[in-house]
Amino acid sequence: MTTIKDSVHDHIRVDGVARDLLDTPAVQRLRNIRQLGTVSLVYPSANHTRFEHSLGVYHLACEALEHLGIDGQQAEHVHAAALLHDVGHGPFSHNLEAVTHRRTGRYHDDVHGLLAEGDVGDVLRSHDLEPAAVADLVAGEGRFGQLVSGELDVDRMDYLVRDAHHTGVPYGTIDHGRLVRELTFTDGELVLDEGNVQAAESLLVARALMNPTVYSHSVARLTKAMLRRASERLLESPETDVDAGTLQRMDDHDLIVALRTCAETTEFSRRLDQRDLYKRAVWAEIDDVPGGIIESDHESIREFEREIADTADVDPECVILDVPGRPSMTESTTRVLVNGDIRRLGQQSPLVEALRAAQYSQWRLGVYSPPEMRERVGRAAVDVLGLDIEGALVREVRNGLDATLDQFVD
Amino acid sequence: MTTIKDSVHDHIRVDGVARDLLDTPAVQRLRNIRQLGTVSLVYPSANHTRFEHSLGVYHLACEALEHLGIDGQQAEHVHAAALLHDVGHGPFSHNLEAVTHRRTGRYHDDVHGLLAEGDVGDVLRSHDLEPAAVADLVAGEGRFGQLVSGELDVDRMDYLVRDAHHTGVPYGTIDHGRLVRELTFTDGELVLDEGNVQAAESLLVARALMNPTVYSHSVARLTKAMLRRASERLLESPETDVDAGTLQRMDDHDLIVALRTCAETTEFSRRLDQRDLYKRAVWAEIDDVPGGIIESDHESIREFEREIADTADVDPECVILDVPGRPSMTESTTRVLVNGDIRRLGQQSPLVEALRAAQYSQWRLGVYSPPEMRERVGRAAVDVLGLDIEGALVREVRNGLDATLDQFVD
Amino acid sequence: MTTIKDSVHDHIRVDGVARDLLDTPAVQRLRNIRQLGTVSLVYPSANHTRFEHSLGVYHLACEALEHLGIDGQQAEHVHAAALLHDVGHGPFSHNLEAVTHRRTGRYHDDVHGLLAEGDVGDVLRSHDLEPAAVADLVAGEGRFGQLVSGELDVDRMDYLVRDAHHTGVPYGTIDHGRLVRELTFTDGELVLDEGNVQAAESLLVARALMNPTVYSHSVARLTKAMLRRASERLLESPETDVDAGTLQRMDDHDLIVALRTCAETTEFSRRLDQRDLYKRAVWAEIDDVPGGIIESDHESIREFEREIADTADVDPECVILDVPGRPSMTESTTRVLVNGDIRRLGQQSPLVEALRAAQYSQWRLGVYSPPEMRERVGRAAVDVLGLDIEGALVREVRNGLDATLDQFVD
Amino acid sequence: MTTIKDSVHDHIRVDGVARDLLDTPAVQRLRNIRQLGTVSLVYPSANHTRFEHSLGVYHLACEALEHLGIDGQQAEHVHAAALLHDVGHGPFSHNLEAVTHRRTGRYHDDVHGLLAEGDVGDVLRSHDLEPAAVADLVAGEGRFGQLVSGELDVDRMDYLVRDAHHTGVPYGTIDHGRLVRELTFTDGELVLDEGNVQAAESLLVARALMNPTVYSHSVARLTKAMLRRASERLLESPETDVDAGTLQRMDDHDLIVALRTCAETTEFSRRLDQRDLYKRAVWAEIDDVPGGIIESDHESIREFEREIADTADVDPECVILDVPGRPSMTESTTRVLVNGDIRRLGQQSPLVEALRAAQYSQWRLGVYSPPEMRERVGRAAVDVLGLDIEGALVREVRNGLDATLDQFVD
Repeated sequence: MTTIKDSVHDHIRVDGVARDLLDTPAVQRLRNIRQLGTVSLVYPSANHTRFEHSLGVYHLACEALEHLGIDGQQAEHVHAAALLHDVGHGPFSHNLEAVTHRRTGRYHDDVHGLLAEGDVGDVLRSHDLEPAAVADLVAGEGRFGQLVSGELDVDRMDYLVRDAHHTGVPYGTIDHGRLVRELTFTDGELVLDEGNVQAAESLLVARALMNPTVYSHSVARLTKAMLRRASERLLESPETDVDAGTLQRMDDHDLIVALRTCAETTEFSRRLDQRDLYKRAVWAEIDDVPGGIIESDHESIREFEREIADTADVDPECVILDVPGRPSMTESTTRVLVNGDIRRLGQQSPLVEALRAAQYSQWRLGVYSPPEMRERVGRAAVDVLGLDIEGALVREVRNGLDATLDQFVD
Repeated sequence: MTTIKDSVHDHIRVDGVARDLLDTPAVQRLRNIRQLGTVSLVYPSANHTRFEHSLGVYHLACEALEHLGIDGQQAEHVHAAALLHDVGHGPFSHNLEAVTHRRTGRYHDDVHGLLAEGDVGDVLRSHDLEPAAVADLVAGEGRFGQLVSGELDVDRMDYLVRDAHHTGVPYGTIDHGRLVRELTFTDGELVLDEGNVQAAESLLVARALMNPTVYSHSVARLTKAMLRRASERLLESPETDVDAGTLQRMDDHDLIVALRTCAETTEFSRRLDQRDLYKRAVWAEIDDVPGGIIESDHESIREFEREIADTADVDPECVILDVPGRPSMTESTTRVLVNGDIRRLGQQSPLVEALRAAQYSQWRLGVYSPPEMRERVGRAAVDVLGLDIEGALVREVRNGLDATLDQFVD
Repeated sequence: MTTIKDSVHDHIRVDGVARDLLDTPAVQRLRNIRQLGTVSLVYPSANHTRFEHSLGVYHLACEALEHLGIDGQQAEHVHAAALLHDVGHGPFSHNLEAVTHRRTGRYHDDVHGLLAEGDVGDVLRSHDLEPAAVADLVAGEGRFGQLVSGELDVDRMDYLVRDAHHTGVPYGTIDHGRLVRELTFTDGELVLDEGNVQAAESLLVARALMNPTVYSHSVARLTKAMLRRASERLLESPETDVDAGTLQRMDDHDLIVALRTCAETTEFSRRLDQRDLYKRAVWAEIDDVPGGIIESDHESIREFEREIADTADVDPECVILDVPGRPSMTESTTRVLVNGDIRRLGQQSPLVEALRAAQYSQWRLGVYSPPEMRERVGRAAVDVLGLDIEGALVREVRNGLDATLDQFVD
Repeated sequence: MTTIKDSVHDHIRVDGVARDLLDTPAVQRLRNIRQLGTVSLVYPSANHTRFEHSLGVYHLACEALEHLGIDGQQAEHVHAAALLHDVGHGPFSHNLEAVTHRRTGRYHDDVHGLLAEGDVGDVLRSHDLEPAAVADLVAGEGRFGQLVSGELDVDRMDYLVRDAHHTGVPYGTIDHGRLVRELTFTDGELVLDEGNVQAAESLLVARALMNPTVYSHSVARLTKAMLRRASERLLESPETDVDAGTLQRMDDHDLIVALRTCAETTEFSRRLDQRDLYKRAVWAEIDDVPGGIIESDHESIREFEREIADTADVDPECVILDVPGRPSMTESTTRVLVNGDIRRLGQQSPLVEALRAAQYSQWRLGVYSPPEMRERVGRAAVDVLGLDIEGALVREVRNGLDATLDQFVD
């Protein structure tokens, strides 16, 4: 058994299959992938890694299983899945998923493959665990899949607390000790026991507050968009032979150095390294935008960018249009026991609809460009996107008012 | 200048009028009044006092004023009001306000009087401060009254963080450092600066989560009701000459010992001391109750209690009917700047209405009695109150199901 | 099973005999005894109680036993002892031990008696536990007595962390999670496992830093001395029939109100309530004092006080001479495994001797009086005690220099 | 003004010259240098960077200067020095200083040069600050140099607290809020004010406890030695044109990728990436070693390594001899005011000598090799180094006993 000191959960005891998995290259690689990608450009303390997070998820899974009275091989499968749930992540965590997904059809590296092969597969088999069963758990399938990847999973419990701890933002503090203790199985489903509606709501609320403050902070979105643009240029560069599969298997160091050394990406890389960022030229409520483009609608977005650049008469690399995906609220399907019945949190709690509405009201697109072209690009974007010039937010562009966009908005 | 170590704000520097007020009996008395009254019977660590809290409020007021660029006599008036804002509190803080209010017409001891008289008045005048002006600030009046007692006041910022720290509940953690920094005056009103809608929401959310978990926890309500009953018996006892005015000027020690030694209250006192509490006989959504009685409707409630006791054929002291006041949401009127306009948070944020609805859905009355009479009292209460026997919550009584009511429900 | 939320250890699960002991009057009484007595007059947040502390000690005992692989009745005896270890405490915890010890020969109420009688005895016997065996553990006897009351006990681990948390002082933070995990039995003795010399040192260091900052802070000592004087007057008062046995069974509320209402103690009580304290008239290294009086030498100290009062021509109640007991360092006998041998920490660590020396260098007596008599009492004390007038510290009196004393006190 | 959220100091306000320096490439580069180098291989949460630390040092410098009543240009020089004090650091912070020092004669990149040139120089001059004066402060020279780099500097105050926060180790918690508040100038020297001997001791104690637990943890030393070896091979490789100057200007990403891609270093790089580390073959008190080699005695150490490899008949790359430098205790010269006189802490406190002795007793050399050669290399090292075979610690090698080494490491 190994005991690891963690800044969030204090001592984490690692035993059994997890102890052996710890030493595999696939797990050690997670030390070199920051949990929050470019968010450290907003919150300088947010340098924690997928490795610590994976240990935390494993730790909470152990606690939940102990309370559920599950042990033996069934528990070991879950332990393995908890520790391995992020091994498919590429560099900068979620930041580049859209890029690789367009090219490989996958958000992550192939988890089933990764778990069956090499050291990880060997370790799993040496503990009489079935790699495919572990991969299914990672995908949220099977009786315990909900614990690893569901609306009440230990993944979320760990990241909310950990991201709050490392950013210094006080909004992600949930009572994870209570949540893992109150999980129970009813009719084959993982549910929160009686009297925990409010504990379930607190998870929802924590995410609703962390979203605009951390995960979708405007500078986090902008830098993610810049990184994505740079990575696409890297993939297209004749200079390198990096393809989407290679990219997915890099860690942060590899990608950062690759961007620094490739001629097509060196300028984006310099901007990110020196925090010499694009600035917001337009900031508009998504409802304002006819047609309803969203993040995944990659081709339309590229087309708009080119058109804005044309209209503004600037280099196409100088225009970034960022359109976040539709706000989601997966926690609304959390199951809670109320007077002996299983209910969906969304049915039970008036908060769910309100938080969903709040998320929509915060849903905004941004157009970004180098500071010196901001005015020109802003006007062009208003034209090209057909934005209602009377809208409150668009006025910001006209007035040159951009007060909320401080470098390190806290 | 004095520096005081605080477990929440670390070092608090106390200077000027506050330094001198610190040594007055009225302020020192607050050391002997617990911030959360009987809540320590639910959360054993919640033994913090009004004294620490008053220091915390003073500290946040200093920070806010510094950011607003206010100093001199204007600031000193606010400093004094912040430190003194709770000097009128009786024993067990808010727990007995209803009792004294019915008899004296006042929730607290007379603040204007307290600030004009004795040592406090002398100190204020020696610093050329006007006691009446300070008392007005405590009452939320005047330009800076909103800072001391308003929907965005430093009182709330301190108590949410402090109560969370001492109970161990993670829900009250707000970014008070940001809030005090973002206050600004616009058109003579205290508002949150641009870009802080969400910071304002977080204050609202913190209170919405702390309410059912801490402030209105069912055991907190029950013990408050038992203490209130005991205090009324004390006031009525021919044995003592305690009247409502005397009661209001007691501290926790005085009242606890008075209840222990008076024959009429010794049994309630023993129950509170030994945590040998009444149990819930009925727990019902307030909507279920015809007529809509609420907390302040004291006579109707007493009448119901007597009728339930009659029907159940038990001593009237063995029935407590607790009907909380209507949920409030004063934060909804918080003013925030949005694109240069002052808006009410309630207009701007879809959360406000949702949280109000959530509070109503948690609004419940309870009937309590000694455990051995619970069944009998429960049936009588269902009859007397005309509760809908088909209602989900009433079923609990029938089934004897009371699982969520653990002694130290966390 | 009950789960209690604690501000230090988060969720504490209470089970078995501990669950039943929790509801006894003897344990509930601890809610009304502050852990640190008058220390809250120095650190206003230090209002935590013996009840929380007892839960914490129980919690750490559970963890230690789990790691040692001890369960069944043997473990239950230790669990009971951990939860009950402080039930003999009188009001204000250790503050009045000397007073009651002089009169009853006991520092605490009779623990063997307390555990055999009443509800506690009934609960213990209903769980087939032997009250005398539990009381022996509380006294540090038997195989597991060292865990409850020894140089490595869980009592100390809890109080260092808890007192640091509630005072806000950062010096008591030890790695208790590691310490309980590294305990082991070797040759029938409780020892720290290999590689933990430094963890043992950290416990020692924490206490060495907490001592002058918290436990023996000059204002904590002064207020303790004032409380002791008042309690002696209470015991001697013809007005009351309080004897030392009654005193020992009071809680803080009882004593505070008794002191307020007894004519002989009302002035001391007012001073403590209003923090209108005596001031230091003399502060001298103990080595300076001929004869070497110490705390337990009660009669000599009283004699000196009378003589100083005579010389200064003031009322004897206006002179308090406080002479702390010799510094102790029980942790020096902590057993640690070093290369397979059991060694005493004092043999192994050069820190132990140094910390002992440091404690001696901080060992000082104080003479205290009402501020307006300070100069007169100071001169008299220098004469009567035969202090070396050239000593650095005595000069303070001459210069009226006392600036460093109140720097971090309120 | 910019406000940055920090996980240690909460909100840090950055203003004046610091605000402009923040955007320079030299300061932004510090985001990519981990504060503790390879320590994250022991404590996985220790991923904090020199950037956060530099902000923290700036923050504490601001607080100290405010308390000292220093403002204007004098303060701005110190602010700049605080924020810039680490810009000369190479990749992995202190880990490679010995390597570059042997080749360039400098531990860091040339600070005077760095501050005079480029964006940093421009910013300093635009604020009418003298780059050379700022560089002098960084070197600890001048009236305020002690505040930036001395035995009582804010650098140390920040790193102790920050490293404790991020490793999760509880030993570095000092009362920095008090320390910065108690600094004063007496006779032109920065001293701690009266009554702070113990606060000064706490700083010393914190470092004494952090040293073996974090900074000189055996795995931290081992991985540092492996990294140093790899970096030397990189510098010698004919494949690359990296020289010591280039190395010093790399950040962590550059060096990691360079080591991965250079044929001579790929194996060391793989071991570090996958945490497939060398193991300890010998662990001996330094006193045991004749001749007294120390870290800086590079040539002797290389010679020993070659000889051990020869004797064991293994590849020279498979032997690492790590001999730490002599323990230092710079805090012993901290100046404290005692009764109006400036004293050195070492004169005043018996702790200083004890902690020095404790450090010497922990001073050990290690010989490391791949696990499968450990026995062979161990015997050879005992021979070559002439270790006393009867010494307690050497017996470990014979017994193959190494249990205590990996207990709290991952």
